[in-house]
Amino acid sequence: MEKAVNTLRVLAAEAISNANSGHSGIALGAAPLMYAIYKNMNFDPTDGAWFNRDRFVMSAGHGSALLYATLKCFGVKDIDLKTFRKFGSEMTGHPELNDKLCVDCSTGPLGQGIAMAVGIALAEAKLNSLYKSAVDHYTYCLVGDGCLMEGASYEACSLAGLWKLGKLIVIYDCNQVTLDGTRASADAEDTAKRFESMDWNVIDVKRGLNDAKAVDEAIQCAKGNPRPTLIIAHTSIGYGSKNVGSNKAHGSVLTVEEIADLKKKWGISASAFEVDPDVVKHFKELSVKKIGSARKWKPTPALQDFLKSRKLTCKTKGLVNARDIGHEMLNQLATQSPKIWGGSADVASSTKMFVDGDNKDGSSKNIAYGVREFAMAAISNGLALHGYTPFCSTFFGFSDYCKPAMRITALMDLPVTYIFTHDGLGNPPDGPTHQATEHIVAMRLVPNIKLYRPSSESETALAFESVFNKGKPACIVLARGDLNKEQPQNTENPRINMLSTGSEVALCIRAQKILRDKGINANVQSIPCLDEFDASDIEKKIPVLGVELGNGTSFWALFGKNNLHGDVLSFDNFGKCGKDADVLKWLGFTPENIANKAIDILK
Amino acid sequence: MEKAVNTLRVLAAEAISNANSGHSGIALGAAPLMYAIYKNMNFDPTDGAWFNRDRFVMSAGHGSALLYATLKCFGVKDIDLKTFRKFGSEMTGHPELNDKLCVDCSTGPLGQGIAMAVGIALAEAKLNSLYKSAVDHYTYCLVGDGCLMEGASYEACSLAGLWKLGKLIVIYDCNQVTLDGTRASADAEDTAKRFESMDWNVIDVKRGLNDAKAVDEAIQCAKGNPRPTLIIAHTSIGYGSKNVGSNKAHGSVLTVEEIADLKKKWGISASAFEVDPDVVKHFKELSVKKIGSARKWKPTPALQDFLKSRKLTCKTKGLVNARDIGHEMLNQLATQSPKIWGGSADVASSTKMFVDGDNKDGSSKNIAYGVREFAMAAISNGLALHGYTPFCSTFFGFSDYCKPAMRITALMDLPVTYIFTHDGLGNPPDGPTHQATEHIVAMRLVPNIKLYRPSSESETALAFESVFNKGKPACIVLARGDLNKEQPQNTENPRINMLSTGSEVALCIRAQKILRDKGINANVQSIPCLDEFDASDIEKKIPVLGVELGNGTSFWALFGKNNLHGDVLSFDNFGKCGKDADVLKWLGFTPENIANKAIDILK
Repeated sequence: MEKAVNTLRVLAAEAISNANSGHSGIALGAAPLMYAIYKNMNFDPTDGAWFNRDRFVMSAGHGSALLYATLKCFGVKDIDLKTFRKFGSEMTGHPELNDKLCVDCSTGPLGQGIAMAVGIALAEAKLNSLYKSAVDHYTYCLVGDGCLMEGASYEACSLAGLWKLGKLIVIYDCNQVTLDGTRASADAEDTAKRFESMDWNVIDVKRGLNDAKAVDEAIQCAKGNPRPTLIIAHTSIGYGSKNVGSNKAHGSVLTVEEIADLKKKWGISASAFEVDPDVVKHFKELSVKKIGSARKWKPTPALQDFLKSRKLTCKTKGLVNARDIGHEMLNQLATQSPKIWGGSADVASSTKMFVDGDNKDGSSKNIAYGVREFAMAAISNGLALHGYTPFCSTFFGFSDYCKPAMRITALMDLPVTYIFTHDGLGNPPDGPTHQATEHIVAMRLVPNIKLYRPSSESETALAFESVFNKGKPACIVLARGDLNKEQPQNTENPRINMLSTGSEVALCIRAQKILRDKGINANVQSIPCLDEFDASDIEKKIPVLGVELGNGTSFWALFGKNNLHGDVLSFDNFGKCGKDADVLKWLGFTPENIANKAIDILK
Repeated sequence: MEKAVNTLRVLAAEAISNANSGHSGIALGAAPLMYAIYKNMNFDPTDGAWFNRDRFVMSAGHGSALLYATLKCFGVKDIDLKTFRKFGSEMTGHPELNDKLCVDCSTGPLGQGIAMAVGIALAEAKLNSLYKSAVDHYTYCLVGDGCLMEGASYEACSLAGLWKLGKLIVIYDCNQVTLDGTRASADAEDTAKRFESMDWNVIDVKRGLNDAKAVDEAIQCAKGNPRPTLIIAHTSIGYGSKNVGSNKAHGSVLTVEEIADLKKKWGISASAFEVDPDVVKHFKELSVKKIGSARKWKPTPALQDFLKSRKLTCKTKGLVNARDIGHEMLNQLATQSPKIWGGSADVASSTKMFVDGDNKDGSSKNIAYGVREFAMAAISNGLALHGYTPFCSTFFGFSDYCKPAMRITALMDLPVTYIFTHDGLGNPPDGPTHQATEHIVAMRLVPNIKLYRPSSESETALAFESVFNKGKPACIVLARGDLNKEQPQNTENPRINMLSTGSEVALCIRAQKILRDKGINANVQSIPCLDEFDASDIEKKIPVLGVELGNGTSFWALFGKNNLHGDVLSFDNFGKCGKDADVLKWLGFTPENIANKAIDILK
């Protein structure tokens, strides 16, 4: 076993050395943990998409070289360590979701991997309660000090304890060293006590420094415990190298000579990127068993029904309040698809994003995340990784708390739908901390997430229908109040185009009437999704007034890209506390002011 | 004392009822805690800016009505509860920093208030170590379940324990109820154990439900303990009202009749917004003592020297690496001002944002935040609230973790400087999780934060100098690699303008040379700060090529606002792992491709 562990160390160090970039200190230290995890993992190296496999999340994503080395040894084809960190290679600098390579999750920004692992384990627990032995597996996660210092990990682990996710096993690579120095200089927590306070099972592998066998035994021990387990495994960063135990080892790259010395010391004679025959044989025996076990699994008809894809539809009901409409559409969809599951960060009663008829048994469609927006988003990623099409929800003003995880949703192209309500001014008396000024533009910038800001019930229905059918990352932003009841009507010979989104479209329609009374024909156009808007339709000869209750940059960029001219009514600063009408008037978001703006442009 | 507490309840309920908006459940429940805190607070109700006052942060900011009621009773003038939550009033829906009203901190988004309180307490500890009795006070903070569920609070509290902030006293309003339901449905932590694991002193006021006296005694007990203290105070949400103990009380508004019933029950006979004479007398006695004690304080010459404003300067040194330049400028400034203090989220060795010669005594200018970006930003807000001009730093790709706190920096107009390095592609082999695509545009959108992306040493020197002299919220974004060595030279009769920022300016200068060789005159202009850029200077007749290694929306909006025409070379999707040159080539960020783009525009 020791030589197998050392082989993982050497392969990872060789990949890093060849790339001249990476974190060999982590790889040298964490190899015993990876060996123990994968020895226990029930997975099929020839089928990374096998539904009932044990999952692994490398939350300490900077150790990706070690992950690839481990996967290679356990029989995953297409692992080419020579291309590590090179352009076009799938052996990336941090793990990226990849069925072919048996990489279960993209990680890198610390704290999020473990939160996603909690989501995966939550999905497994739910599916297990519904489909019994057809879904019954463990979720493993490797974390370092960095992950445990991040608030997101704490939020998620607290929920894992609450939810009694007994099949979640987290291995903590405790090496007492961070990038900048010793752990003690930035952290003095009693980690075991912390996890016990969240109702976790904690196993401190005190006797086994760098000992794969001790970690293996701890994993055996964790299995069957009804609570999630944290295994505190003690390792030496940069094990075997000259910087062992120092933060200098963290991001270091070993020379070819240093690696040769290690191989000599550890009795490894294979050439670079190769594995000694005895070690090949050792891993082969382990993986053959795994494949055999995996191939015995069959999905039950009930699980197959869960997994099949469905065409979902949304129907309008004549509702006007944005949140009531969202609630209705979510509920229509949830009755059609068993994959829709989600919750809110303690504001479901206000966002109205919950599924009716929750009965606290296995059929519950709602998740109470508590006041934990970041973990909610990351856990949603985990649910999506395990076959769900989750939704999650909070006030739009708090969407920044979710944003780091939304980026990972987008990067993995997961079917997570973020439903943010109380856009623009939110509930105005709550004041500027609750008013989303720049968020609408900022969210549109995240690559690979489409943002919808519907202006009416029918546009909301279309947005929900489209988003949940596509199964892509999406963001639906809803007002707190009423939406537009009538669709905008185009006029003949318009002299100006008013382009708007969300609840401001209703204001534009009222402005259109004021203008008509003054003999000015104006068009009003709703743009529920700027990404899907084809500006070539816009008549270029007449000016444009963009109207959006938020930062004006999206509209100005639309002007710039499409050579439009005119003006934008926006809201580029912090808002103020006050009654709705007072604040809207102060900001100029009234039909009268919009009409005046249009007249100014025409002058 | 009981009548005084009930008076606070009634006044807050009256303000909320009059506004028909607010959280009376919180106010009715937390009144005993606020009474106990302010009874102990050493502050001057006639001088909210007194430097050595005890600070109070209402982290559960939705209780602002109760804060104003308390301040009114303790003698703060200009509190007008009748204007609560109305437009133009300073009695806002969540507390907003206001010396005149003795409001020490803006709060609202949960978890951040307590993190800022940690920052204030850290500043106090540092100033106390330097200036002894001239700065010697407590920092109080009121939190609810919501604040404690947020990851930011956990990050900050962990540091408070590490730093042994003995003069931080946090009172936890433990009412077992959240907005959506019972605390138990979303949280099962052993809070005392959790805080003990972070080396806090925990006092659970078990015997005193809704008992101000018991909380008062707990505060006495906390004083003098070398560790930060968490007081777990048990209260009933909606105390006295029909929804007592239920989540329905959370955001409820009492009717005039309900308030009248409460007043009758509690023996309060004053009319609305008034206070019975015996209660007035009680508070008067308390506040007279406070004022007397406050007025005895005098700043020492050493503290006066700390507090005085200084004109700071930065000199160029002929450096080329962006991070080396940033390091140099930060160090030049830090030797000139004692107010400059800050740190990094465990990447100081990589961002190089540290002050040289740290010696671990009171003169240390570096803070090791560990891997806790959000808390780092919120704690920086706390430092700034206490007179520092802090800096903090991480990779630009992780700036989203800081963003919710950056918004509060901006809202309070605090002198916090965020220094993000590794912009654009970061270290390209780290892959897309570490590459900042949309962040440059997103950060520019935050109201009241100026973002600088300098292209040379002299622009970096100017940015640092300007930012630290102005004392305003700012963000300096630096490359990982080299900046431009020469300033762009304008040519005669240019046919195209190339506008760029940061390290891409050097690419544009090289493209300029390629174009010159082809007989095309092109101008290159660096825009270190888009907010400060006057586009009227740009020659409108010739086309523009915008070049920025990030999302193109800022440049397109610049085009739209200023009627520019041309094209933008940007990077609107996720990046890829690979060597610098390979990734830049893939994205088209090469001098050759920039020159070709310019030629295409001219066609």
